[in-house]
Amino acid sequence: MEENLSFDLYHPQPLMVVISGPSGVGKDAVVKALKARNLTFHFVVTMTSRVPRQGEVEGVDYFFNTRENFEQLIAEDEFLEYALVYEDYKGIPRSQIRQALSSGTDVILRVDVQGADTLRRLCPEAVLIYLIPSNEAEWLERLRTRKTETAESLAIRIQTARSELEHLAKFDYVVVNAHDRLDEAVDTIIAIIDAEHHRVEPRKVCL
Amino acid sequence: MEENLSFDLYHPQPLMVVISGPSGVGKDAVVKALKARNLTFHFVVTMTSRVPRQGEVEGVDYFFNTRENFEQLIAEDEFLEYALVYEDYKGIPRSQIRQALSSGTDVILRVDVQGADTLRRLCPEAVLIYLIPSNEAEWLERLRTRKTETAESLAIRIQTARSELEHLAKFDYVVVNAHDRLDEAVDTIIAIIDAEHHRVEPRKVCL
Repeated sequence: MEENLSFDLYHPQPLMVVISGPSGVGKDAVVKALKARNLTFHFVVTMTSRVPRQGEVEGVDYFFNTRENFEQLIAEDEFLEYALVYEDYKGIPRSQIRQALSSGTDVILRVDVQGADTLRRLCPEAVLIYLIPSNEAEWLERLRTRKTETAESLAIRIQTARSELEHLAKFDYVVVNAHDRLDEAVDTIIAIIDAEHHRVEPRKVCL
Repeated sequence: MEENLSFDLYHPQPLMVVISGPSGVGKDAVVKALKARNLTFHFVVTMTSRVPRQGEVEGVDYFFNTRENFEQLIAEDEFLEYALVYEDYKGIPRSQIRQALSSGTDVILRVDVQGADTLRRLCPEAVLIYLIPSNEAEWLERLRTRKTETAESLAIRIQTARSELEHLAKFDYVVVNAHDRLDEAVDTIIAIIDAEHHRVEPRKVCL
């Protein structure tokens, strides 16, 4: 043999996968079902400065922190993205993502549409998946019955969610989340991640 | 409701999927295993002007045609691509692909690396999947033992196959075909097709 051929053509690089979509589409349900598959993903846990609600578990639902510590971490540029939502901070810890990616693990983030916009700007090569409802009636019903932290009226909630639908074009993939076919949405997300790992030109890891 | 929202955001368009890779990588085996899954793909049947070999079935292995008819079809621009290989014509019938795509069916083509180059030029938005061997020793063994129509020596066959490996960069996806893990390659191809159907910006259908 005159030359050595490299067969290491397939370098699976870890991905940053962002799952988003309009309010009421069922982002939490999809991410929960994806978690239940027990695949080797790192699901990013958001940090918040609000106090835990009953049943919420540190490191699972959120990382809880004081407002003071949170502001210190902001000053240290620890958050990939953060927002002050009704007097409480919420942020995506940069070190948590960096650690997962450097160990070769795909990172899954569940963010609202505004957060996805920010992540697209910060990590242009993140994989952005947009969940859409399968039909309008079902989606409006979810908006009507969902618990909300805010006092906004149903009319405003619907208006906001409608405007969020217009962000679709900024995403890479669109997946229908039909209420009674959650597993289909999860299967598709897994297929997307699998396919992305087989791109000839891998996406650059951000961070 | 003030406005009507369209939820028809997910328009699955049929794809042209090209499966290729260097000689000896096992393209036929992969396509055969993909066929065996009985999914709704149209597998393109090549037309040839050579006489059928024992056991070959019209419309399954090839469409057989006379040299004269073949040349008539060339004149009518019926072939997406054709080549004269050792005095026999081989060509990809355009009408067959057009018919499948227009009925909404994904089309799968199995072509050699040179054919994939041509298809990329003709259909820039085709999905090009490149199979690579999992290790060099196994691949060289396949090259050594494979039946070949041509009288070329093993040295030339290996040299050609090596040069084919350099075409990888022109493809969209790379899938390892390990001899004993054929099903993994097929699973990945199916995931790629699934993911491609969920792109926010669908690929344009060529033809």
